[in-house]
Amino acid sequence: MKISLLGGTGDIAEGLVLRWSKVGHEIFIGSRSDEKAQGIAAEYIEKLNSLGIESKISGMANADAAKASEVVVISIPPEYAATTIEQIKDSFTDQIVITPVVSMERQNNTFVYNPPAQGSSALEIKEALPDTAKLVSAYHNLPAKELSKIDLDLDYDVVLCGDDEDAKKVVIKLTEEMPNLRALDAGGLEASAMIEATTPLIVNLNIRYKPQHFSVKFV
Amino acid sequence: MKISLLGGTGDIAEGLVLRWSKVGHEIFIGSRSDEKAQGIAAEYIEKLNSLGIESKISGMANADAAKASEVVVISIPPEYAATTIEQIKDSFTDQIVITPVVSMERQNNTFVYNPPAQGSSALEIKEALPDTAKLVSAYHNLPAKELSKIDLDLDYDVVLCGDDEDAKKVVIKLTEEMPNLRALDAGGLEASAMIEATTPLIVNLNIRYKPQHFSVKFV
Repeated sequence: MKISLLGGTGDIAEGLVLRWSKVGHEIFIGSRSDEKAQGIAAEYIEKLNSLGIESKISGMANADAAKASEVVVISIPPEYAATTIEQIKDSFTDQIVITPVVSMERQNNTFVYNPPAQGSSALEIKEALPDTAKLVSAYHNLPAKELSKIDLDLDYDVVLCGDDEDAKKVVIKLTEEMPNLRALDAGGLEASAMIEATTPLIVNLNIRYKPQHFSVKFV
Repeated sequence: MKISLLGGTGDIAEGLVLRWSKVGHEIFIGSRSDEKAQGIAAEYIEKLNSLGIESKISGMANADAAKASEVVVISIPPEYAATTIEQIKDSFTDQIVITPVVSMERQNNTFVYNPPAQGSSALEIKEALPDTAKLVSAYHNLPAKELSKIDLDLDYDVVLCGDDEDAKKVVIKLTEEMPNLRALDAGGLEASAMIEATTPLIVNLNIRYKPQHFSVKFV
């Protein structure tokens, strides 16, 4: 599929780009500037090359990356995600949009979930998108470091939610192409607040149980 | 230890009573009426007897059960938990109080976390307790059915939080006396909202993936 990652640097973007490239998807890295996006794309291509993997990765402005793709991953910090989408709203038609966005803050020594007024980052992003786009909330709790090691099997669950059943099926398939992730459907987009809240919980556990990087499994 | 379960019927209470009795703890079942509590206690005693296990379980009014114990589990529905504690506030001194309370509601076809104004049921219950009581938030996500089968090993994680380190240590010990639960400390009581929010998420998964009863593991 044609998959774009807006703001495609850091955190889980690298792992997703490498793993999806490995199974043949075409990747569009979006950034605020063409140049920056092309620079990131070149790095990913080189990394895959060094592993003997040919890839189709290109870099471009966020608006062009969104337009070029069937699936758009919002890999943008929570404070910029919705406004970035607003600015390029015309680039969205009926794409599947994946939000792994989570907003958290520190209270005393504990990270807590800090959702926007809409109740979750997913609901905030839904407001910014045209109604035709199909939003799926997923990938909040993948450990970035493990994800980027593309030969490592990932024995984790990806809990996702959204209101479009077909879009969720596509995201479930894209997820399970990454061995050995299992995707679990938690219902409508209303469930996103609970999925997002799992992230600060895991952050707290990671701080207390260093050097373990926790992710989650439902058993 | 002397452990009371206020409103000690249904859900996870049965499993906790049976498993803690099995390892020798003394249990006080609390209810609004003496009689009802004694009836429940008699049922638990009989159940353990039939398994060849001698137990020390008695039933009494909530206030007396709280007074008699070192650890108090609030096994009361979310809409009554804080008011019940308010009514028997004088029964609490420096006990360890465990809240597994979660408030949720249904939106469309999805269960969502619906915390009280304080931000979580734990923070609401903290307000109702005297400052000397040591509140630990735990046991939200134990599957009741599996918990009540006392010979079944439970390969789950119990995520807990609270502001008193010694109280958490006691709850971690009580948890890990139930094979093979692992207790994970997620930080201060502020973390409770995220732990509580995991419950409606699991409820949604249980509905979609029937007949599986999910619990959670951090890996």
